[in-house]
Amino acid sequence: MLRKAVERVRERQPLIHGITNYVTINDCANILLACGGSPIMAEDVEEVEEVTAICDGLVINIGTLLRQRVPAMVKAGQRANELGHPVVLDPVGAGISGLRTRTALELMEKVHFSAIRGNASEIRALVSGRGSARGVDADPAALAGETLQELGDFARRMAAELDTILVITGEKDLVADGDQVYLVSNGHPMLGRITGSGCQLSALITAYLAANPEDRLMAVLAAVSLMGVCGEKAHAMLSEEEGTGTFRRFLLDAVYCTDGAELERLAKYERIG
Amino acid sequence: MLRKAVERVRERQPLIHGITNYVTINDCANILLACGGSPIMAEDVEEVEEVTAICDGLVINIGTLLRQRVPAMVKAGQRANELGHPVVLDPVGAGISGLRTRTALELMEKVHFSAIRGNASEIRALVSGRGSARGVDADPAALAGETLQELGDFARRMAAELDTILVITGEKDLVADGDQVYLVSNGHPMLGRITGSGCQLSALITAYLAANPEDRLMAVLAAVSLMGVCGEKAHAMLSEEEGTGTFRRFLLDAVYCTDGAELERLAKYERIG
Amino acid sequence: MLRKAVERVRERQPLIHGITNYVTINDCANILLACGGSPIMAEDVEEVEEVTAICDGLVINIGTLLRQRVPAMVKAGQRANELGHPVVLDPVGAGISGLRTRTALELMEKVHFSAIRGNASEIRALVSGRGSARGVDADPAALAGETLQELGDFARRMAAELDTILVITGEKDLVADGDQVYLVSNGHPMLGRITGSGCQLSALITAYLAANPEDRLMAVLAAVSLMGVCGEKAHAMLSEEEGTGTFRRFLLDAVYCTDGAELERLAKYERIG
Repeated sequence: MLRKAVERVRERQPLIHGITNYVTINDCANILLACGGSPIMAEDVEEVEEVTAICDGLVINIGTLLRQRVPAMVKAGQRANELGHPVVLDPVGAGISGLRTRTALELMEKVHFSAIRGNASEIRALVSGRGSARGVDADPAALAGETLQELGDFARRMAAELDTILVITGEKDLVADGDQVYLVSNGHPMLGRITGSGCQLSALITAYLAANPEDRLMAVLAAVSLMGVCGEKAHAMLSEEEGTGTFRRFLLDAVYCTDGAELERLAKYERIG
Repeated sequence: MLRKAVERVRERQPLIHGITNYVTINDCANILLACGGSPIMAEDVEEVEEVTAICDGLVINIGTLLRQRVPAMVKAGQRANELGHPVVLDPVGAGISGLRTRTALELMEKVHFSAIRGNASEIRALVSGRGSARGVDADPAALAGETLQELGDFARRMAAELDTILVITGEKDLVADGDQVYLVSNGHPMLGRITGSGCQLSALITAYLAANPEDRLMAVLAAVSLMGVCGEKAHAMLSEEEGTGTFRRFLLDAVYCTDGAELERLAKYERIG
Repeated sequence: MLRKAVERVRERQPLIHGITNYVTINDCANILLACGGSPIMAEDVEEVEEVTAICDGLVINIGTLLRQRVPAMVKAGQRANELGHPVVLDPVGAGISGLRTRTALELMEKVHFSAIRGNASEIRALVSGRGSARGVDADPAALAGETLQELGDFARRMAAELDTILVITGEKDLVADGDQVYLVSNGHPMLGRITGSGCQLSALITAYLAANPEDRLMAVLAAVSLMGVCGEKAHAMLSEEEGTGTFRRFLLDAVYCTDGAELERLAKYERIG
């Protein structure tokens, strides 16, 4: 299943529109190219609708957020929704400021997201921000000391409510739609010692969704396990005196080189709910 | 001839002012340093005239365009024109939105460009945008299925009309002023699998023009063939499990290491018109 | 002494808020992670106070300056001052335009900086800009042809007046507070052939100050010599056909891999005033 998802990205070469932060914008463009897609970064409110219309998917990332960029995010997202393109949200830093949390919630209010990817604290912030009045039946406080099973159940319920695929990344990753929850055990801690591995994963997810409309959950699962597998491969290639500089390079190499059969062989995922 | 162009860049160390997109701004700065020049990136309308005045050339790139950045592009371009500095336009994404096409045309209206570099579809958009009323005697539609010879003839006519050097990059590259057309056959498809190889070439062209006022066409030809040769060298150094991460690194290494004699030996160009 | 400074950064994992230029923002984030800290980049005036409050230090860098970004710099700086966090200024390009010089001076007026890092011409511009009326007793003109000893004495006086630690980087580096001046002789010219080695050093200094409140001068000295030592190590690892692409990668590797004992062994610094 994963194999097919990888191959379709390389065959269909999805063009992805990115509105993303300036820290990792170059990394996101390069990983989209490495996986078989292509990027267009455009964020002026005057052009985002036209640009997103010629693309196959849209990723919105709120890192280095400037308030004035939000209307373009909304416009692009709504146009992509009209066209039935997958739209992915990366709520970078939700919870670290009112602006980030409010912006993520405003985007979720106005745009339908095919997938949302964040770490547990970002997702927690989205839930707290929405408040119990909005009907999320998980106690946000519970996210702090929960087991993976509990976090997975929460993710499934939240995915159902939002009609999205929710990806919660951490030491292990959770992928849930409203019906199923998968636990992905690939990855390496060094992914956390470079900037942007999360942003890059959100871009990858967008390309995988755009090229795999046949099975969206499997597409996301493929992207998440691909990032983890590539982190493992990149770390395995390091010699003793090599660090994050070389790791960054090997990570991009691995995304470029890993084919569907290899991902199928190396991916470690299981359904847990 | 190419040899001299490379050597002059290293001797004269041109300082290049860049107003460029945020995706590849770091790559552009690094390639300017690698070739022997130096970058200053500055885009506030309050300072661009002062900054460009202490530089030797200016490159304007409209990727990740924000409408509010355009007045600074115009001001910088006009000041550089007054001072006789070379000014290069990279019309990234012309044709993908009205904003991009209009902005490229506005810049071409208000600023004289020493060189313009784009791919065939971007150049096609500039021609369509200007319209037949503006006297471009090529049928824009003809650019779609044309032979390289036809595209070259078109480039020469357009270069004459705009009093510029036109560079159309693709599988093979064309370099034309109003009199001559050269076909450059260096390069490697992997240059298209990393972001910014076009932006970097536009920056290189600017440095080469700034350091080689004696023969501008030869300067541009040297920059274009240098990028292609470095793409070939970078690809040749890759092992099987290496991909675009390593390619990016070798490309910058190659620009840093290639000297004039080596470029002279490896460049493949011929006059075709 | 340096050894302890390195170890504390790895133990305390300082979270650093960066408001920095878009050319090297990715490099700054990655070097903060490589040294043992973590970055948050945030620059909207609505959120900078909240963000800086959850961080341990703040670095403000005025490269690719846009005038509208300055209020956020001031707000973040003042909030960090209230909280007693170290705040570092990198006055990139002070002297190349009125806007840059005025902005650096405005920031120095409104925010107290724990350290300021620039090259000699940037520091010269700050002194000229402040003018003799402000009581800086060095003749700015003297900075042009001065000996290192004279430049060091000047740095000590300026550091005393500004109640800061002044770092002047060049072929050799000077680190001064109001009492002492150190000369650091590590480094390699190739650091000047990549973009952002100065910006990255300013980020490193911030992390070192945040993790080492016990001895701030020693913290800065450790960061400055670490950058120099890593430049030497990165250059030593290059083969003949490798250039700045590989150097960039090895530099980040070296920052990731160098421990306190190795820095202690390789650092070359002496008190000269």
